[in-house]
Amino acid sequence: MLDGFLGQSMMKRAAAAGHVIFNFINLRDFTEDKHRTTDDRPFGGGPGMVMKVEPMFRAVESVRTENSRVILMCPQGAPFKQARAQALSKEEHLIFICGHYEGVDERIRQELVDEEISIGDYILTNGVLPAAVVIDAVVRLRPDVLGGEGAAESESFSEPLLEGPQYTRPVEFRGMSVPEVLLSGDHGAIAKWRRQQAEKRTSERRPDLLSGGALENRDDA
Amino acid sequence: MLDGFLGQSMMKRAAAAGHVIFNFINLRDFTEDKHRTTDDRPFGGGPGMVMKVEPMFRAVESVRTENSRVILMCPQGAPFKQARAQALSKEEHLIFICGHYEGVDERIRQELVDEEISIGDYILTNGVLPAAVVIDAVVRLRPDVLGGEGAAESESFSEPLLEGPQYTRPVEFRGMSVPEVLLSGDHGAIAKWRRQQAEKRTSERRPDLLSGGALENRDDA
Repeated sequence: MLDGFLGQSMMKRAAAAGHVIFNFINLRDFTEDKHRTTDDRPFGGGPGMVMKVEPMFRAVESVRTENSRVILMCPQGAPFKQARAQALSKEEHLIFICGHYEGVDERIRQELVDEEISIGDYILTNGVLPAAVVIDAVVRLRPDVLGGEGAAESESFSEPLLEGPQYTRPVEFRGMSVPEVLLSGDHGAIAKWRRQQAEKRTSERRPDLLSGGALENRDDA
Repeated sequence: MLDGFLGQSMMKRAAAAGHVIFNFINLRDFTEDKHRTTDDRPFGGGPGMVMKVEPMFRAVESVRTENSRVILMCPQGAPFKQARAQALSKEEHLIFICGHYEGVDERIRQELVDEEISIGDYILTNGVLPAAVVIDAVVRLRPDVLGGEGAAESESFSEPLLEGPQYTRPVEFRGMSVPEVLLSGDHGAIAKWRRQQAEKRTSERRPDLLSGGALENRDDA
């Protein structure tokens, strides 16, 4: 599922330059029955399947070191925020468990997992896309990965304001013009306008950010 | 980037059965200069690049019909929730604009886009993974896609409670046991225990859901 994602520009360059190493393990390789069973029906009945405890422990233990952090991607996890990405970017080794949506045996949570993360309140097929989202957010914060771009720190959610309107050429398109202040060359006026626009957009769209939402998880590390 | 994702089980089956049709268009095919430029520096200065207005209008207009809904994936968008996935699953044609993170010309927002969506408060390289997340959440809600599984409606966020602990075989693993109630065969007791566990987990981890967070966006359609 992630070949395309890991083969695109930033991830590919980061891996080629040795800034990050990706390693995939297949849970089925850690089963012992001939059907290579990784899930089973839930005790107590109900719909869906539950990921089994033994193959998961064996799989994680095959790669875990004392510097590993084991992360379960699941809907019950802590909502992922930018500050958590920053904390994870300082870790040496992350192990992502990408469960099928229906769930994992609770004993995996109790004894194997260091941290549970949810990327948002919506239902996905499994934890693979969520892991890719966390990987993208984390890898771009690693030293040297973004190189000279230097844009990482000035972007949304590093401070709790949404970015305001941006414009590029042409000045006029189908009767819509670039605001005059941006063409003025007056850097003070431009900075002031941008700040006002960012505050306006944030209060209109995400007033929750102004009360500190974007900074949650900052001290969870 | 999405070949692997769209080639996996649920998406592949949904496309093969004709429940959904995926179509990709390349913004560069809608440029007119020899360098096929899709972004440019922002008016007023600052880091990063801004996606240009003309290729984006041409690209979207090449596929848009009167039944299309144009969605911009961006950090300034409305936070994506399950209720929004349900509303979008009833649309006939969704067009996703996957911008580079730094931003798009504001006139694209003003005149081309019907809706802006953010999958969460974290910084990603571009809008491709976010579009994949929305696609996954939406396609699985289309009629017939999940077929006989029937689990979609009982999962987390359809009601505002996190799912509680699940267990499967074996009953005992490294000293950790399955709770006796789940082995009792008493369906009433099991249902009661599960409800209590779900409420406990939600109040411990996501008290915000109990005040209605999971149901936001329900009437946005």
